[in-house]
Amino acid sequence: MTDERMARMGLASVHDAGDARLHALVGREGAVEVWDHLRSGHGNTAMSRRAAMVDLSDVVKRTQAVGARFVIPGDQEWPVSVEDLSWSDPVGGFGGAPLGLWVIGKNLAESSPSVAVVGSRASTTYGEHVAADWGAGLTERGWTVVSGGAYGIDACAHRGAIAGGGLTIAVMAGGLAQLYPPGNTALLRKVCEVGTVISEFAPDCPPSRARFLVRNRLIAALSQGTLIVEGGMRSGAQNTVSWALSMQRVVMATPGPITSALSVTPHRLIRSGEAILVSSVDEVISALGPADTSIPDYPLQQPTLFDTLTPTQQAVYESMPGRGGISMDELCVLTGETALTLLAVLAQLTQASLITEAAPGTWKLTHRS
Amino acid sequence: MTDERMARMGLASVHDAGDARLHALVGREGAVEVWDHLRSGHGNTAMSRRAAMVDLSDVVKRTQAVGARFVIPGDQEWPVSVEDLSWSDPVGGFGGAPLGLWVIGKNLAESSPSVAVVGSRASTTYGEHVAADWGAGLTERGWTVVSGGAYGIDACAHRGAIAGGGLTIAVMAGGLAQLYPPGNTALLRKVCEVGTVISEFAPDCPPSRARFLVRNRLIAALSQGTLIVEGGMRSGAQNTVSWALSMQRVVMATPGPITSALSVTPHRLIRSGEAILVSSVDEVISALGPADTSIPDYPLQQPTLFDTLTPTQQAVYESMPGRGGISMDELCVLTGETALTLLAVLAQLTQASLITEAAPGTWKLTHRS
Repeated sequence: MTDERMARMGLASVHDAGDARLHALVGREGAVEVWDHLRSGHGNTAMSRRAAMVDLSDVVKRTQAVGARFVIPGDQEWPVSVEDLSWSDPVGGFGGAPLGLWVIGKNLAESSPSVAVVGSRASTTYGEHVAADWGAGLTERGWTVVSGGAYGIDACAHRGAIAGGGLTIAVMAGGLAQLYPPGNTALLRKVCEVGTVISEFAPDCPPSRARFLVRNRLIAALSQGTLIVEGGMRSGAQNTVSWALSMQRVVMATPGPITSALSVTPHRLIRSGEAILVSSVDEVISALGPADTSIPDYPLQQPTLFDTLTPTQQAVYESMPGRGGISMDELCVLTGETALTLLAVLAQLTQASLITEAAPGTWKLTHRS
Repeated sequence: MTDERMARMGLASVHDAGDARLHALVGREGAVEVWDHLRSGHGNTAMSRRAAMVDLSDVVKRTQAVGARFVIPGDQEWPVSVEDLSWSDPVGGFGGAPLGLWVIGKNLAESSPSVAVVGSRASTTYGEHVAADWGAGLTERGWTVVSGGAYGIDACAHRGAIAGGGLTIAVMAGGLAQLYPPGNTALLRKVCEVGTVISEFAPDCPPSRARFLVRNRLIAALSQGTLIVEGGMRSGAQNTVSWALSMQRVVMATPGPITSALSVTPHRLIRSGEAILVSSVDEVISALGPADTSIPDYPLQQPTLFDTLTPTQQAVYESMPGRGGISMDELCVLTGETALTLLAVLAQLTQASLITEAAPGTWKLTHRS
């Protein structure tokens, strides 16, 4: 007998990147049934063989070791907007909603409405300048900036968002044990602190070309719109754009000098009508339209209960796991607060129904239905 | 008794810039009637007082002195496309087709289909580079480049066209006695040699703000499409665009860095859908569509009789006035050929019906109906 979270963690540890059939099967049969079926050796596929070999307790340990939590549909911080991937299929039998997400950093439910800022790794000074400006300008206006953590435009968008004092989400194409690319480790660690880093791949799964492509669909799905900054003739940004368009998301492009090869993709998208030309934060926000409040996990703009907490209460609340439980000792280490302070804060948070005592002497987030 | 050409020259010497009512009146009543009426002192308006003072023989002398010819509707080289201005009226009671054109340089009928390349005077290095590239690239592909001869983008477009070995037309906002602006005199003299400089104002008429605005309508009317390169928040290019759109001409805009204030007008035009984003000569030509052969004075793309002439024949043919006549002595000076050579060439051109003997010993272009 396996619970839903463990089944999804198992499936997420063995699935092929972007296996839409598996996602569909889980939707029909349930994760537990599919996982138990795979584990029992049925099918004799590469996936069932991998399933037979996976040690789930090890995946749990690795998840904790990298400071991540494994979030699944139904969790308070599950980003419901990724469910749009269930019906989006621009490339045929490829994609689907993620089975679960490994998450480090801020609670995803506390993100404001998000906009993706993506573009070329081999960026120009112009593109980097503009990406950082978008990152700062959009977070200053209350938007969370989603990107892929890559060199070039992605990194500058994250940096700008951090500089703007806002939230940013980096979506990885591999597991969270090795934040990729290595040259951006310091930046991605910073995102873990002030924003959120997520992956649909188990902590030790290396990035691959296929995983980069399916990663792009998550960037598009997490965001109300996608904004391209620089892309050459064959740009990965085009892939993100296809996903965004297939989910009826807004696509925007930043124009640039026609003398630059990296203006090719933005200009082509504008010419074809796939993207709206944007040249200021006002234009981006106007193109995005009102924050989509139909996405229940992106409720902000108005203050939440979380915003009313003291810094210490927030720190404790943020340390809470969604499942399992965290002990007093662990909380002391994580927050740097004394046991006495923590006891008071735990009582306050419990009273506010934000956290729940799990096993005696351990606490976790209250599961919101 | 005044002939049509003299009447139009008179009217063109005294009209207010862009007086659409005068143009309409001439269309209804005829230039001779309107001119004679004005000259007889009727109306007692500023225009009739100016008309009473004009010495037409002096205007003719000044026209010849600056090396210009005065071209009117019905002339072989009259650019019929400017007649579209008769029904175009984007700003109300302002505009209309020109009454006549003072022309220096190449026969307008020998221009290939034209495209206007216009933009800011206070251009950036990027804009200047791009304007020169458009000028060269478009003339290399057989298009004539029309612009306003101003500093910045206009000058670079003309220079590029000359460098590309193609035709270029500069439309002046004042008379041709003083090519404006003074800093572009050398460039505009070069355009007089290898291309055409035109004005709807009498040779000694100074440029003025009103004349710049009505000049813009001629740039738009002479061209199958208008291409904007750089323009700030309040750009004169917007005025040219309004004229072009009101005549159902194609409008194109060159994107640029969003960090440049001079990208504001191109980007706004693209966002509003008024202009097509173009980033290569192929895209411009594709946007322009097939050369509009419904404009009878822009017949090229296919070889003309002119193309079949020898260089000497071409030089002689190009020296021919549309009216009056040119003497053997003048031809010797203009072409640098001997009288013996010229006699042979004149015989060949006469036989081909390209030129006609005017007064004995002088020749002119054959008037094509």
